[in-house]
Amino acid sequence: MKLSEIANLINGELTGNGDLDITNVGKIEYARPDEITFIANPIYERYYNSTNAGAIIVSKRFMPPKDSRNIPMVYVNDPYRAFLNLLEVFTPELKEREIGIHRSAVVADTAIISNVEVSIGANCYIGDKCVIGKHVTLFPNTVLLPGVIIKDDVAIYPNVTVHNNCKIGNRVIIHSGTIIGSDGFGQAKTADGSYVKIPQKGIVVIEDDVEIGSNCTIDRATLGETKIGKGVKIDNLIQIAHNVEIGENTVIAAQTGIAGSTKIGKNCMIGGKAGFVGHIEICDNVIITAAANVSKSITDPGIYSGYRARPQKQDLKQEALLRKIEEMQVKINNLEKLLNKNS
Amino acid sequence: MKLSEIANLINGELTGNGDLDITNVGKIEYARPDEITFIANPIYERYYNSTNAGAIIVSKRFMPPKDSRNIPMVYVNDPYRAFLNLLEVFTPELKEREIGIHRSAVVADTAIISNVEVSIGANCYIGDKCVIGKHVTLFPNTVLLPGVIIKDDVAIYPNVTVHNNCKIGNRVIIHSGTIIGSDGFGQAKTADGSYVKIPQKGIVVIEDDVEIGSNCTIDRATLGETKIGKGVKIDNLIQIAHNVEIGENTVIAAQTGIAGSTKIGKNCMIGGKAGFVGHIEICDNVIITAAANVSKSITDPGIYSGYRARPQKQDLKQEALLRKIEEMQVKINNLEKLLNKNS
Amino acid sequence: MKLSEIANLINGELTGNGDLDITNVGKIEYARPDEITFIANPIYERYYNSTNAGAIIVSKRFMPPKDSRNIPMVYVNDPYRAFLNLLEVFTPELKEREIGIHRSAVVADTAIISNVEVSIGANCYIGDKCVIGKHVTLFPNTVLLPGVIIKDDVAIYPNVTVHNNCKIGNRVIIHSGTIIGSDGFGQAKTADGSYVKIPQKGIVVIEDDVEIGSNCTIDRATLGETKIGKGVKIDNLIQIAHNVEIGENTVIAAQTGIAGSTKIGKNCMIGGKAGFVGHIEICDNVIITAAANVSKSITDPGIYSGYRARPQKQDLKQEALLRKIEEMQVKINNLEKLLNKNS
Repeated sequence: MKLSEIANLINGELTGNGDLDITNVGKIEYARPDEITFIANPIYERYYNSTNAGAIIVSKRFMPPKDSRNIPMVYVNDPYRAFLNLLEVFTPELKEREIGIHRSAVVADTAIISNVEVSIGANCYIGDKCVIGKHVTLFPNTVLLPGVIIKDDVAIYPNVTVHNNCKIGNRVIIHSGTIIGSDGFGQAKTADGSYVKIPQKGIVVIEDDVEIGSNCTIDRATLGETKIGKGVKIDNLIQIAHNVEIGENTVIAAQTGIAGSTKIGKNCMIGGKAGFVGHIEICDNVIITAAANVSKSITDPGIYSGYRARPQKQDLKQEALLRKIEEMQVKINNLEKLLNKNS
Repeated sequence: MKLSEIANLINGELTGNGDLDITNVGKIEYARPDEITFIANPIYERYYNSTNAGAIIVSKRFMPPKDSRNIPMVYVNDPYRAFLNLLEVFTPELKEREIGIHRSAVVADTAIISNVEVSIGANCYIGDKCVIGKHVTLFPNTVLLPGVIIKDDVAIYPNVTVHNNCKIGNRVIIHSGTIIGSDGFGQAKTADGSYVKIPQKGIVVIEDDVEIGSNCTIDRATLGETKIGKGVKIDNLIQIAHNVEIGENTVIAAQTGIAGSTKIGKNCMIGGKAGFVGHIEICDNVIITAAANVSKSITDPGIYSGYRARPQKQDLKQEALLRKIEEMQVKINNLEKLLNKNS
Repeated sequence: MKLSEIANLINGELTGNGDLDITNVGKIEYARPDEITFIANPIYERYYNSTNAGAIIVSKRFMPPKDSRNIPMVYVNDPYRAFLNLLEVFTPELKEREIGIHRSAVVADTAIISNVEVSIGANCYIGDKCVIGKHVTLFPNTVLLPGVIIKDDVAIYPNVTVHNNCKIGNRVIIHSGTIIGSDGFGQAKTADGSYVKIPQKGIVVIEDDVEIGSNCTIDRATLGETKIGKGVKIDNLIQIAHNVEIGENTVIAAQTGIAGSTKIGKNCMIGGKAGFVGHIEICDNVIITAAANVSKSITDPGIYSGYRARPQKQDLKQEALLRKIEEMQVKINNLEKLLNKNS
């Protein structure tokens, strides 16, 4: 595609040779002369002079570094969005799904499957009384135990397990290997020190527009519902225990764990490897930084960080003081010497 | 069911209208007027006046808050146990298993499968010389590699893998996506900086009455056995490395990791996200709090906590002192000023 | 096998009864009289007098403890290697793979599979245009989505998913339940607080001689490649985010997480449960201790440790100072009293 055509496609202003032939998009470090790249984040400006890309998409506010070479440019309002649009143009989707039920899939007679563009992959298992909506794709080797209800436009990747009676909303994406609705960790100690299992009778409800990463575990409620609110986005290897509730549009990065019955508010951002004890409540609009451990309810929006999470300002202040602890010790010793001399 | 019948069923003393018709059990925050709920933990007493439940099960020692409204009550010795019993009454099990071997399962000719109520689900794979006991359920898409031995009354959920020669005791439950007996992480560095794999020839032995959560990884021993003791309960996403041994009735919360050859005693309680280095020993009756990292053997029972785990009393004391570090700095500066003035 | 034959086999010098019949190898704590064991690590010397083993392999520099009993010994240069060799002799491999494509596997017509000793297990799925090299083993229930390319001598264990177009080098081992190439966690916030998915169009490239543990997640790049370098060894439950690159011969222990676009150098050693924020670079020959969190680029080789990782020397020094904080407080208070008295 000619560079001038690309500029038109993304509503950009072109400088340089519009006849340049562009065959793909590429990252600024690796792009080749027949590829177009972009700069959205200033930290990538350092590649401006060294990139092999044929052209660069930049913001209308972009100022090239001094003494920099000439390279064809396309100025747009939002370089990243423009780039994403080009990505779609240059990388057509692989045909990954076939409409229909693969001959090797096992589907219970009592399951109800929409006849509108559903794709059930090889070796899937669909249990008794499951209900599957329109435009749903189950990739190979996925298991739905009895009574699972899946709404429309859902994609479930391979080797996922959804346990009985769990409910999955519209446009939900569940990535490979994730387990929805396994038993919560409920064990009651008995007099002799052994434990008896507490039956886990609730379900998991995943609301519309949720995306869940790979190899996560979301346990069913002991009673009632473990609930993942509308628009929540969850990364990989995340543990969500029984009866947890997560508010709308909260995002959670990889390897975070949330213990039983804890409630997370709306629009929160939770970094990777964070931990939450059980039975606490986090209000809306809270940011938890990576590797923070939250052991008490949070009632004020803001940023919280640290091994024992507290407001980030406090945490950073104490951290700064800690780094002066050697200096403090020296001062104390000097004061002692001085006093001993004086007295 | 009439409330008076329920009171009889759970050996309780009824106050209020015994003719009330109860159709289900419910959590105190969400229960409806035709449901019965319970208070076992005092933190739920705050819902006493606001619950919509038709009746509440409470302890015989329960005192209603002052000025509280009248609501039918059932007084019992152990409200939680009474509630669990009712749970069984009101929520009959879904029929999730069918006796027999599903036509899509692949079973080696040399496998020996009990003819007493075994259920092998769709798309399961059972390798050479596996032995499967009575009343065992393998849910769909589970894989047993050759030589696995499973005793009686075991349930293995979907997408589990058990590697060759591992042994699973009576009444064990393994939840979805868990891997038993994959190779331990044994790599020997060579002169050129690359690594060669150390063969992992041992097995995993899971004793009776163990429950293992979803997406865990329990590695086979390099030689000998990785051993999960009788009655151990393990939550989700837990890593147990080669040659680890865990003593009877120890419970471990989600996302904890135990490195190679470490031995954990009996009756320990280990919080979520805890970590243990390899080659250490933890004695019986130890409690490790969530997110603690244990790098040395522990020889005294008790509670251990902190990023570098130590006895909780020490840990909390130091944490309290740390919070005074600013104050300390101020004092030091004042002392310095005072001394400078004086001298 | 006679002990004298074993001594020959491992090039060792025998002391004691060479006619002893040895039937297996065993760990020093558990070995029986007809088994041979070894001491490579001095911490196992404490078992020297108590082991029931029939013979012990030791280093040529080994000195038995004073007053110790007589037991047949084989002196070698490297006891551990000698032991590994015997392990191979005494424990023949189970027949776990059968050459050919199992009748229950589903293989796309357009997939290209080498005819040299490939084993495709039960219930595997191989998508459109996959390419599979010589001597490859796919264990049961593994899924390759369309376009996956696998070179020679690769083993992929059960319930693994490899997503479309990912590339796997020669002699790679992927353990059970691991997910290669699921979507990176790319979400763009919109004006109303909800998120839109950023398409993940790149792939994962796994170079030669890599071993990846169980239930890991390695996300595909947004664009370009997530790259696992030649000879890298990865333990279980590890998260590797989109566009991460890991240099040759780096080893990573269980439950570590590496956030998006971070680059790890060659020959690094990373402990378990470590965390790395996104968009940083770690140079070659860095050691990160277990549970350390790395939030900045590292440009100097060495050991880094701590909740907020820094050079280990600094970290341990501060930790030692922290343990004196109570003493410091006492001193300050004494100084204050003294000064108050003096003034």
